[in-house]
Amino acid sequence: MSTNTVNRGETVTSAIPTVDTAGVLAMLERGRTLATPVLRAAVDRLAPPMDTVAAYHFGWIDAAGHPAHGDGGKAVRPALALLSAEAAGRPPEAGVPGAVAVELVHNFSLLHDDLMDGDEQRRHRDTVWKVHGPAQAILVGDALFALANEILLELGTVEAGRATRRLTAATRKLIDGQAQDISYEHRERVTVEECLEMEGNKTGALLACAASIGAVLGGADDRTADTLEAYGYHLGLAFQAVDDLLGIWGDPEATGKQTWSDLRQRKKSLPVVAALAAGGPASERLGEMLTADAKKTEAEIADFDEDEFAERAALIEEAGGREWTSQEARRQYATAIAALDGVDMEAEVRARFVALADFVVVRKR
Amino acid sequence: MSTNTVNRGETVTSAIPTVDTAGVLAMLERGRTLATPVLRAAVDRLAPPMDTVAAYHFGWIDAAGHPAHGDGGKAVRPALALLSAEAAGRPPEAGVPGAVAVELVHNFSLLHDDLMDGDEQRRHRDTVWKVHGPAQAILVGDALFALANEILLELGTVEAGRATRRLTAATRKLIDGQAQDISYEHRERVTVEECLEMEGNKTGALLACAASIGAVLGGADDRTADTLEAYGYHLGLAFQAVDDLLGIWGDPEATGKQTWSDLRQRKKSLPVVAALAAGGPASERLGEMLTADAKKTEAEIADFDEDEFAERAALIEEAGGREWTSQEARRQYATAIAALDGVDMEAEVRARFVALADFVVVRKR
Repeated sequence: MSTNTVNRGETVTSAIPTVDTAGVLAMLERGRTLATPVLRAAVDRLAPPMDTVAAYHFGWIDAAGHPAHGDGGKAVRPALALLSAEAAGRPPEAGVPGAVAVELVHNFSLLHDDLMDGDEQRRHRDTVWKVHGPAQAILVGDALFALANEILLELGTVEAGRATRRLTAATRKLIDGQAQDISYEHRERVTVEECLEMEGNKTGALLACAASIGAVLGGADDRTADTLEAYGYHLGLAFQAVDDLLGIWGDPEATGKQTWSDLRQRKKSLPVVAALAAGGPASERLGEMLTADAKKTEAEIADFDEDEFAERAALIEEAGGREWTSQEARRQYATAIAALDGVDMEAEVRARFVALADFVVVRKR
Repeated sequence: MSTNTVNRGETVTSAIPTVDTAGVLAMLERGRTLATPVLRAAVDRLAPPMDTVAAYHFGWIDAAGHPAHGDGGKAVRPALALLSAEAAGRPPEAGVPGAVAVELVHNFSLLHDDLMDGDEQRRHRDTVWKVHGPAQAILVGDALFALANEILLELGTVEAGRATRRLTAATRKLIDGQAQDISYEHRERVTVEECLEMEGNKTGALLACAASIGAVLGGADDRTADTLEAYGYHLGLAFQAVDDLLGIWGDPEATGKQTWSDLRQRKKSLPVVAALAAGGPASERLGEMLTADAKKTEAEIADFDEDEFAERAALIEEAGGREWTSQEARRQYATAIAALDGVDMEAEVRARFVALADFVVVRKR
C-alpha cells in the first residue's frame, strides 16, 4: 500500500497525500511532448478557416493569427492516456492516438459549452465564439469531434474500433452532463445526487476514457479497461470536487479566476448543494439568500461587493458544505486508488497513477 | 442498357428519363418502414429534454409535445442504404443500422446548419433553435452525431468499424462544405468549380456514404464500396443541381418554398454562378445587378416585388445558367449510372439504383 492511500469515512480528512510534484509535472510534460505534435498535425487537416480557429482555441496562435504560447491546460488527460497504455504493458507511445482523440473531444465540448453558456473567457483569453463568432464555434467543435473518431479509426485495428466505441459512450455522457447543467440552471434546488451525476457525466466520463483508452488500444481486455475507467471516473469526481472548492475559496492568483468565481455565476456546485441539503440555521439562511439572489439580474449580482460574496461563502462553510466537499474529494480519491488494485500492472506504473491522483486532490489551481 | 441511360455531352438534354414513380415510392416507403422504428428507438436513448427536442426536429411531435405526422423528408438516404446492402447480396435489413446512422448525421448537420445560417423554417415548421433555443440545437445536434457512431459501433463487427470510418469521412466533408458555404456568403464571386466542390461536400458526400454503407456492413470489399460511393456522390451532385433549379424556378405549390426562394436568400447556387461565369451582355447585366444587391440589407431584398426577382431569373436564364445547370444534372446523373457498371450486382438491384436516380433528376419538389 502506498503511503498516499487514504481510508474511507470520517478520518479521511487527516490523510493529506504528499505529492511527488516533480514526478507528476514530468509525467504531464511527457504527455504534452508526445501528444501535442500529433494533435497539431490532426488540427492541420482541417480546411481553412477552421484550422486557424482551432489553433486559436488551443492557444497556438493569438486572435491576430500570430504564434502564441497559450496555457493549454494541465494536460491531465493526455498523461493518463499514455499511462494507461503502460498499464497494459505497452510503451506510452501506444496511447498517443487515444490521448489526441480524448483531447479533441474535450475541446469540442469546450467550444460548444462556452457558446451555450455564454462564457466569454477561457484560459485567460476570449473564447472562440467571442473572437470568431458563434458559427465558427459550432463548426470547429463539430470538426474536432469528427477528427477524434477519424484519428482512432484510421488505425484500422479491432482495438481502435473498441476505443472509438468507448470514446463515443464517454462523449454521450459529456453531452448528457451539459444537458443536465443547463436544466439545473433553471431550477431552484438541485440535490447532491443530481449534482454528482452531472459532474460524473461532465468530468468523470472523459477522464475515465482517458485512463483506459491507451490500454484498450494496447489490447487490454474489457475487464481491465472497465477497471481503469473506474479509476478515471472517480478521479474525475475528485478533480471536480476540488474544482468546486477552488471555485469558491481558490486563490485568484493561483486559479486565474475572480474571487468567489462560482458564486458570481450562481453555480449550483457541490459545496452549495451540500450546504443547502445539510439543514440547520446556516443552511436555511443560505437557502433564503440564494432564493432571493435567483430573482436578481446578472448585473445586480455583478454589482455585489466582496462582503456579500464572503457572507454567502461563510454560510456555505458554516452549513458544512466546504467540509463535505473536501471529504467527498477524498472519498472519490480513495475509490479511484482502490480501483487500481483490480488491474495487474507494474508497480512503477501504479505509483504514477497514484501520484497523478495525489496531484489532482491537493492542487491549488 | 436501361432505357433510362443517357449519353454524355451535348445531346444529353433530350434524354429525359421515364420514372417508375410507383416503384421508387415503394422503395422510399420501404426505407422509412424499416429504418424509422430503429431511428426512433435510437432517439429514445437520449436523456430528457434532448429526446423531446429531437422528436420535434424529426416531426414526430409538435412544439407543444403532441404527436405529429410531420414531413420527414423524401428519405432518399435510408432507401439507398438498404439498396446498398442488396448490392452486396445481403437482405435490405442488413443496411438498417447504416440507414439510421446516416439519417442521424444528416439531421445533426441540419440542426447545426439551421442555427449557423439563421434559418427559421425547415419542412414547413419552425426550426429547433427557434422553438427550443440555440443551446438545445447545438446540444441535440451533438447528441445525434454521437448516436450515429454508437449505433454502428455497438454492432461490434470489423465491418461496423469500416462503416464508421467512412461515415466519419463523409461527416468531415459535410463540415467542410458548410465552412465553404459560410465563407462564400461573404464573397462577391464564387467560381463554378468552387460551387460544385461545396455542393459535393454538402450533398454528395453523405449520399455517397448512404449508397455504400449497407454494402460495407454487408461485407463488401473497398473497391465495391468506393464504386457505390461514386454513384452516390454523383447522384448527390445531380440532386443538388435539380435542387438549385427548383430553388429559382420551382413551383411553390410543389416545393413548399416561396417563389424565387434562392434569389430571395441571395444564394450563390449553380445557375447563378454558371450565368455569371458565362460572359456576354445578360451575364454582365446580372453581375452588376447582384453586385448592387449585395450592398442592400436583407429587409430591402425582402421588399422586392415579384417582377424584380423575375427579372434576375430571366437574366440567369438568358445567360445560360438554367440550361447549364440542367445539363449538369444530366451529366452527373450519367456519371452516377455509369459507376453502377463497376459493381457486380443483381439486375433487379441495379434497376432500382437507376430508378432512384431517375426520380432524383425529374422530381418537381
